[in-house]
Amino acid sequence: MGQMIATTRNKLVKELLQLQKKAKYRREQKCFVIEGRKMYMETPPEQIEQIVVSRTFSKQPENQGLLVNRDYVVAEDFVFEACSETKTPQGILCVVRQPEYSFSELLKQKNPMFLVLEDLQDPGNLGTIMRTAEGAGATALLLGKGCVDLYNPKTVRSTMGSIYRVPFLYFEDLKEVLMELKKNDILVCAAHLKGKKYYDRVNYKEGGVAFLVGNESRGISEELVEQAELLIKIPMAGRVESLNASISAGILMYEAYRQRRRKE
Amino acid sequence: MGQMIATTRNKLVKELLQLQKKAKYRREQKCFVIEGRKMYMETPPEQIEQIVVSRTFSKQPENQGLLVNRDYVVAEDFVFEACSETKTPQGILCVVRQPEYSFSELLKQKNPMFLVLEDLQDPGNLGTIMRTAEGAGATALLLGKGCVDLYNPKTVRSTMGSIYRVPFLYFEDLKEVLMELKKNDILVCAAHLKGKKYYDRVNYKEGGVAFLVGNESRGISEELVEQAELLIKIPMAGRVESLNASISAGILMYEAYRQRRRKE
Repeated sequence: MGQMIATTRNKLVKELLQLQKKAKYRREQKCFVIEGRKMYMETPPEQIEQIVVSRTFSKQPENQGLLVNRDYVVAEDFVFEACSETKTPQGILCVVRQPEYSFSELLKQKNPMFLVLEDLQDPGNLGTIMRTAEGAGATALLLGKGCVDLYNPKTVRSTMGSIYRVPFLYFEDLKEVLMELKKNDILVCAAHLKGKKYYDRVNYKEGGVAFLVGNESRGISEELVEQAELLIKIPMAGRVESLNASISAGILMYEAYRQRRRKE
Repeated sequence: MGQMIATTRNKLVKELLQLQKKAKYRREQKCFVIEGRKMYMETPPEQIEQIVVSRTFSKQPENQGLLVNRDYVVAEDFVFEACSETKTPQGILCVVRQPEYSFSELLKQKNPMFLVLEDLQDPGNLGTIMRTAEGAGATALLLGKGCVDLYNPKTVRSTMGSIYRVPFLYFEDLKEVLMELKKNDILVCAAHLKGKKYYDRVNYKEGGVAFLVGNESRGISEELVEQAELLIKIPMAGRVESLNASISAGILMYEAYRQRRRKE
């Protein structure tokens, strides 16, 4: 097993903290940090750059199986706690290499379902959306640069592992992305309060679809609304002005999934 | 306008803090606290017991309209901040009387849609669920005593005002509630991973329906699963094991709403 980290002044500790706190540093290093048993087990081994466990974790018999044939570093419990972003650390965290996806490859899929997110701010919402996207069989998330970083530790946690299975890409300019989608005959639908057509009156069975969901409070920018082919609306009873962004995304993707499953 | 609170040792300040921090105290007093302009405007005036504003808030011309013909107390800004549960206080909070609902009255509604929640733990999830329930035209939330308190300041905030419009009741024993629902010919559907029937293959158009959603990680207890007439399943592509509780609730309620809207 080798190395033991006995001080928080260790270089790896600083690296871990930087990777967890700074989106910019994560981008530069093309890495991120995951924590806990479940996330560790979900992580494809070939993406793992570094495994760090606490001394207590390394000694518990039930954890031995997890570490067989793996290189890992042991840290004193207090050092591990200093590295951890969670209130009750489970004793294992990893540095993981960021996956890379190609937009043109994603566009080649048959009848794709994209979720385009503009300025989504809440880390938990984004994680939940990714998890729901996997459940609904979505092809990929396409994110504007104004969205919260998917590699934010809170977001990573709330994806419950979907981060490894749902492709995603960040873009400087979502307007160009929408144009590219339309060029590829993908129906771009913007969830909008002024939508004239109800979301469940649109046919998502044939062809590709992209759902555009905006910021939690401001919605979608005018610039992007103009690029949408269809403004769709989720009907709301009572006096509700809007739904939570992750709920809207879930309802839209599951309606498309419902229709597509019916076809089979 | 009258009274000015100049010290955090004021009795009202202590009262506000107790009401925000302690569910038990809220139950005893049958009151809760709301904060911010939007929530204040959503609150039915007859339920308001006390309005407290910061000195700065009270002096801003744009706030004068909000306070016309209302009794309110002004607090020094630092005192107000000490009372507030939010990071950036808007300068207005109220003590609000808890509404009271009758289960037997709710059962009299035609084709009701109930959401039954067991041991839901996340305050934000519960608020989001309530907001979604209003949007989907649900009749009421029926909550087990193990659920987080709806009057938790975080939950209240995330309902975005739906707390005033969606009836809800807490019960000691949800098993009895499910039996009562069945006695009233309401179809009790439990969202369950072992569900045999997909949620979108059930007819929710005629008659009443109750969706049972369980704890975020444990799901629904065996005791309640046994009481359900139908175990329904939300299909999940990929390797998703479960959806977020508020997403599941949203998908179920909106499917019922979709079918019911089609009928018209």
